Amino acid sequence: MIAECGLKKTDLVLVAVSGGVDSLALLHVLQAAGYPLLVASFNHRLRPEAESEVAHVRQIAEEMGLPFVTDSEDVATYAAAEGLSIEEAARELRYRFLFREARRAGAQAVATGHTADDQAETVLMHFLRGAGLAGLKGMAPRFILPVFDAEIPLVRPLLAWTRAQTESYCREHKLPYLTDASNTDTTYFRNRLRHELLPHLETYNPQIRQTLAKTALSLQGDYALLSEEVDSAWEQVITASGADFVAFDLSQLRNLTPALRRHLFRRAAFSLKPGLRDIDFDTLERAASLRPAHLAGGLKIIIEGNHLYLTDDEDKLPVDVPQISNQWPGPERSEAQSKGITQNGVESLLPFEQNREILHSTNLEIPLGSNWLLTIEYHKLDTDNLSLEPAHCILDADLAAGRLRLRPFRAGDRFEPLGMPGKTVKLSDLFVNLKIPKRFRKRWPLLLVGDEIVWVVGLRTSERFKVTASTRRVVSLQLKRALVHKL
Amino acid sequence: MIAECGLKKTDLVLVAVSGGVDSLALLHVLQAAGYPLLVASFNHRLRPEAESEVAHVRQIAEEMGLPFVTDSEDVATYAAAEGLSIEEAARELRYRFLFREARRAGAQAVATGHTADDQAETVLMHFLRGAGLAGLKGMAPRFILPVFDAEIPLVRPLLAWTRAQTESYCREHKLPYLTDASNTDTTYFRNRLRHELLPHLETYNPQIRQTLAKTALSLQGDYALLSEEVDSAWEQVITASGADFVAFDLSQLRNLTPALRRHLFRRAAFSLKPGLRDIDFDTLERAASLRPAHLAGGLKIIIEGNHLYLTDDEDKLPVDVPQISNQWPGPERSEAQSKGITQNGVESLLPFEQNREILHSTNLEIPLGSNWLLTIEYHKLDTDNLSLEPAHCILDADLAAGRLRLRPFRAGDRFEPLGMPGKTVKLSDLFVNLKIPKRFRKRWPLLLVGDEIVWVVGLRTSERFKVTASTRRVVSLQLKRALVHKL
Repeated sequence: MIAECGLKKTDLVLVAVSGGVDSLALLHVLQAAGYPLLVASFNHRLRPEAESEVAHVRQIAEEMGLPFVTDSEDVATYAAAEGLSIEEAARELRYRFLFREARRAGAQAVATGHTADDQAETVLMHFLRGAGLAGLKGMAPRFILPVFDAEIPLVRPLLAWTRAQTESYCREHKLPYLTDASNTDTTYFRNRLRHELLPHLETYNPQIRQTLAKTALSLQGDYALLSEEVDSAWEQVITASGADFVAFDLSQLRNLTPALRRHLFRRAAFSLKPGLRDIDFDTLERAASLRPAHLAGGLKIIIEGNHLYLTDDEDKLPVDVPQISNQWPGPERSEAQSKGITQNGVESLLPFEQNREILHSTNLEIPLGSNWLLTIEYHKLDTDNLSLEPAHCILDADLAAGRLRLRPFRAGDRFEPLGMPGKTVKLSDLFVNLKIPKRFRKRWPLLLVGDEIVWVVGLRTSERFKVTASTRRVVSLQLKRALVHKL
Repeated sequence: MIAECGLKKTDLVLVAVSGGVDSLALLHVLQAAGYPLLVASFNHRLRPEAESEVAHVRQIAEEMGLPFVTDSEDVATYAAAEGLSIEEAARELRYRFLFREARRAGAQAVATGHTADDQAETVLMHFLRGAGLAGLKGMAPRFILPVFDAEIPLVRPLLAWTRAQTESYCREHKLPYLTDASNTDTTYFRNRLRHELLPHLETYNPQIRQTLAKTALSLQGDYALLSEEVDSAWEQVITASGADFVAFDLSQLRNLTPALRRHLFRRAAFSLKPGLRDIDFDTLERAASLRPAHLAGGLKIIIEGNHLYLTDDEDKLPVDVPQISNQWPGPERSEAQSKGITQNGVESLLPFEQNREILHSTNLEIPLGSNWLLTIEYHKLDTDNLSLEPAHCILDADLAAGRLRLRPFRAGDRFEPLGMPGKTVKLSDLFVNLKIPKRFRKRWPLLLVGDEIVWVVGLRTSERFKVTASTRRVVSLQLKRALVHKL
């Protein structure tokens, strides 16, 4: 299994040593194989003998002529503070220490003494939990843990050895291993597996540990194959991804099998939350049904039109509709902004009443969110070009101009839609009917003449101030996609 | 799970009914759902009460107004005769009966009452055996068993129901199920899983049966995804496949991951032996190392140059080298054959001594195996065109003609290679050096003048009878690819 770890004999390897039989065998095997080593031992302060165990490891390192690093943390206190189990807290602090020291020393990898017995326990644990392929594949001989380091891998050179082998190796080479050195990764559940269930399974298959270690190896190969397929599906269905969200093309997702969707959601979840430990099948299956749902770690599936988002913060999702803000005009208002040109599209609001001169005479472009422009033009009535498009609003300029205002939607807003004279409808109902996602409603731009809503921008125009037989001049407002998306 | 079975309400479904709780629930559920049904019950003659159980099922069918078919076989006798376990023999005879009756009745599917409990046992059994993804994925809701029928699927509509659910369904609907109806698929091993191990695993996960049934579902999706990848790799690396062998392009295989190779070998093995029940990981891993090896069911991996064959009968592999046979001239010799034109390339042998007139004067083509031609031409010596190609042999016609013979290689054959006058080498050594596969050697054509080997056809020419300063006329023999491969 050393070969699968892909280590170079020229570069340092940090070896995590508890002093137990596995880690001492690992240390000796790697030294015999000629790798330059750094011994690292972590004191979890969970048992009174921990300090003397670390001292024991330090002495072994000295006798082997190897450099040694150590640190200690109060795992129990950290666990309580962070709301973690003792095992989770121990793992997090230990790995943080190991990778920090590996970076400091310029090590090529962190090596741990996991054996085929550990692998069998891991596979069995995932099997009992129903973790699917991603869990059943167990531990890889070489693996990046992005939470701890993006480049230095964790390697497990003894993954093909049974614990019986590390024991006889230590006896043969007279290595002074500690029989009580704590394996803090060993939860109560895992201990039951080790001391009760695995021995019981041996009555069904005497080679169960090796069998499960082989199953892991076989499934790792299958998982790698599948990952290639997931890679190419990812290319196809992901329209955007970042630190805050992953955006899928919903119609493309619908063309994929549920199995592939499950893998895509799993990957997306881990890309947003690298520290996630597991996502169960039921959760992934719900996600794969492509309906709004909660995934793991606070992540939610949000569907808007043909977009499906995975995020834990709706406010960070991209905005592709016109939006304005109440915060305008704010303290950072500039001259450019007062002329209707804003620096931040989402925060743009033009107080029309302060620009009367411009509105009376000047054609104008106002950015509404990063992708949208509102254009305003004054001209004579041209009855051949009266648009009924919701993206186009034409008002009688003599009645409306000078009183034009833009403001965002407020709860309770009503207006009188074009074609329904004398009848008002609630804007909230209009938003629902038009399937405008909730998060866009409170910043949706409305055009008013005085206090009357005359255009729900881009969606519906009203009966009020519309062009009549007596109209001479019009103000023509149009919502357009901006050519330059970002300033 | 009924939806996943893909059944049409217009076509007959054959339901396998033992009279036990699962099969009775299945029968009732399918009738309630409106499928036209045929009840089939098989008597394995393994227990004295079997006959009365079949009678019980017949009565239920009558009461439900459903057609009924039955048959019986002496499973124990068949098992002994075929060297099968009782369980294997029972399964084979039962499925043979079910699919035969399904064909007779024009049924769209054979339905069985497998439940989530059976699924959990199956997954667990494969897990303990180390069967890899193909086994861990358990039973599919719809599946073709090519050994029994190439088109009628086996469907398992109750795969999502636990046994507790079928029991309460039967009680609720007052279905008179037999508590002792034998499930002949239940081996001693499976019984231990059911009554001992699964209850024990429930102390780790109370929902273990449902968890394992979900694992199966999840892995079936993954397996289907992987199968697509295997499909496209198959297109790329398989150069020929038939009933007797599968031929791989070895250099293409080397470009694939071991995991993908394992799946390809698994698929190839099942394409040759649809009745294979399992291939373990070690065996597939050995195969994936691309060295000659034994696979399951008598199948062997044979490597010849850039060909890798999987077969259980080397004699059925394709022949792409020149070959002749000792059987010629045989009783079916025809006039065409005596002129050097044979009907069966592999069996071709021209007894030159019987064609002296032709050889003295006539140019000739002799097929040597289905893809090869030996051309013979007589002409004046042309020193500008003296080839040293092993596919070309030029002899002094006055010395050699009239004494030319073709015969296949015999153990002990030696000859004097061109450029090594006075020194003879063993042809067997030559074959080894040139990496000629063993299966081709005993039919390899040799050209002789009298009793002396002058050309190991296509491979090496000899010192003997070569063109000299006193040569006037030559006989020029050339090995060529035939344009028409098959007669």
